[in-house]
Amino acid sequence: MTAPTITAPASAFDKIKHRPWTRYFTFAEDEPFVLESGATLGPITIAYETYGRLSPARDNAILIVHALTGDAHCASHGPDDPEEGWWEDLVGPGRVFDTDRYFVICSNVLGGCQGSTGPASIVPRTGRPYGARFPVITIGDMVRCQARLLDHLGIERVVAVAGGSMGGMQALEWAVRFPERVRSAIPIAAPARSYPQAIAYNEVGRQAIMNDPDWRGGDYYGTPGPVRGLAVARMLGMITYQSDPSMTRKFGRALVETRLRDPYSLFMTFQVESYLHYQGKKLVNRFDANSYLYLTRALDLFDVARPWGSLEAALDRVQSPVLVVGVSSDILYPTYQQKEIVDTLARLGKDVEYAEIDSPHGHDGFLIDFPKMEPILREFLETVSER
Amino acid sequence: MTAPTITAPASAFDKIKHRPWTRYFTFAEDEPFVLESGATLGPITIAYETYGRLSPARDNAILIVHALTGDAHCASHGPDDPEEGWWEDLVGPGRVFDTDRYFVICSNVLGGCQGSTGPASIVPRTGRPYGARFPVITIGDMVRCQARLLDHLGIERVVAVAGGSMGGMQALEWAVRFPERVRSAIPIAAPARSYPQAIAYNEVGRQAIMNDPDWRGGDYYGTPGPVRGLAVARMLGMITYQSDPSMTRKFGRALVETRLRDPYSLFMTFQVESYLHYQGKKLVNRFDANSYLYLTRALDLFDVARPWGSLEAALDRVQSPVLVVGVSSDILYPTYQQKEIVDTLARLGKDVEYAEIDSPHGHDGFLIDFPKMEPILREFLETVSER
Repeated sequence: MTAPTITAPASAFDKIKHRPWTRYFTFAEDEPFVLESGATLGPITIAYETYGRLSPARDNAILIVHALTGDAHCASHGPDDPEEGWWEDLVGPGRVFDTDRYFVICSNVLGGCQGSTGPASIVPRTGRPYGARFPVITIGDMVRCQARLLDHLGIERVVAVAGGSMGGMQALEWAVRFPERVRSAIPIAAPARSYPQAIAYNEVGRQAIMNDPDWRGGDYYGTPGPVRGLAVARMLGMITYQSDPSMTRKFGRALVETRLRDPYSLFMTFQVESYLHYQGKKLVNRFDANSYLYLTRALDLFDVARPWGSLEAALDRVQSPVLVVGVSSDILYPTYQQKEIVDTLARLGKDVEYAEIDSPHGHDGFLIDFPKMEPILREFLETVSER
Repeated sequence: MTAPTITAPASAFDKIKHRPWTRYFTFAEDEPFVLESGATLGPITIAYETYGRLSPARDNAILIVHALTGDAHCASHGPDDPEEGWWEDLVGPGRVFDTDRYFVICSNVLGGCQGSTGPASIVPRTGRPYGARFPVITIGDMVRCQARLLDHLGIERVVAVAGGSMGGMQALEWAVRFPERVRSAIPIAAPARSYPQAIAYNEVGRQAIMNDPDWRGGDYYGTPGPVRGLAVARMLGMITYQSDPSMTRKFGRALVETRLRDPYSLFMTFQVESYLHYQGKKLVNRFDANSYLYLTRALDLFDVARPWGSLEAALDRVQSPVLVVGVSSDILYPTYQQKEIVDTLARLGKDVEYAEIDSPHGHDGFLIDFPKMEPILREFLETVSER
């Protein structure tokens, strides 16, 4: 293992939030990291944040893994940190991922754009960003980088790996790829493999980005980049993260203010359109379009079975209890996909639990329905801790 | 009424199929047609095809109304016509819309691009195409133009109006707007009003088109136009016309030939992606992007209740039997939306039947599941004819 560095790596993406709490771990400086594709990459930096204190026995760590556009900031670091995290209600003192008790680690994924190595990173040899020359990566690659981070932190085994959506894929991949390193896994709103409808949505989003002339084959750094294309991709994403009933409840057929008198326009007429445009613009201000391309492709390529020949062979590697959580109204990764994991694990005699969040919020439920998730996670973690 | 013309109107869209069977009816030449928006339009040409013979009493007509990208060619005209129509299995001698018995009329909608007046039509005054200066139109406007066509054909009342998707909206609109002119209505896979999720999908498609620099604010005629944007819109449309199970069955996680050995690419990797690209290109070869914008906006604006104050007030106008058909796996206009029509009509004491096609094909079921639809339609039409 090469010596870790703690400085932020060079990136051409100008919207990285460098937080006082962010740490950087760099590896594969001398010997490149071999990706699942066979391509090599190095050096690799993983940006991460930690919460709470590692116990002297180094046995109280919990790894939180993020979704497509998430980052290492899963929660605020206390009174000095005004920025809430994406799992704010679940991570902190007294919360379910109790930072008085656990040492919580959250890292930005490989291929991301918030501090970890990704397509906006500067290639040391050329001094230019990777752009579309970045290698295609997988969920397995993300997880293997996280394992290197744990090595670096001197953590052999974690109490739990937990995450939703792309994070749920990583949690499951952890339990299969490194069964001896996790005492439990909590994949939420995630499948064992991407199904074609989800791949199709991703491809529409990618096409919107790559068709934007400002994408420039991925070499747009130093310019605003494919902001319209990325916004369209996000607009579509937001539809798949919600549900028909939740959108109906939120927007109905309400018109935007300026169209109340004359709704007969090709342009933004309904409030649901205004909402989507707003969400599109918001993402553009914090996310790199190339990362969007690479991470959605990693989602598509996800098939936990692939390296092991079959889903049974893959899941038979699991040694820890697994809590699988689904959201009843999820249209992106519908609950039958979580049940497939549960049924297969159960058939193999594994220790598996299934909990379904009854929610109208769709896939986004894992970022919204905290009061419903909290007791389920708490009870599961208690049983894991007692063993 | 002004004198009808039978020549094709001038259009800047160069992919119109002028068929030997196409007829053109032009009106509003002297006095413009007042649209629901209050804007005026004229002259208006409606392209249509007919099948079978009008009875001497002019009482055997059936009006077939098409979906978003459909046209007036709902079926082949017999051995001399090699081109199948979009409802080929339902329209013809001995078929459920029996052309030995009924006089079937099918017209291209106002705003369309296959012969009827739409954004590609040439404005007589300027000699240039409307483009984005075309007025926003509604399902009600389409139906009112069809009523003018029936006037022209000397048909006071039709045996049935039938259609799926946008055609289903028109069928319902007919029963409400012209209750005395329809002896029955068959709206299939359509809602009483567009819900926000469907509006959201349409807006993503429109943004893909309007963000394409080749859209040029709608003035792209004489150039290839926004072919990439329209293809992306269609790709998304195709997802919403299918279902998660049908896509899984058709494509699974199969790779395209060229990626079998190395699936690690940002570009077309999975067969489902290849399928979507193929469908996108196919539409570009037959459809005008501006029509896509206007017709999807007409879908969004559709609310059969609007002119009458409430859904109850609207549906209370209905005087004919209505057969509402839903497809069990429809994700675009889910069956609760058909049931809303049925429940409201039933509450009002109207003559309404509901039939649900049990099909994995999703919304597209109305263009696929003919063996399941045929007996339902046949039985309903028999009871209507017997009255």
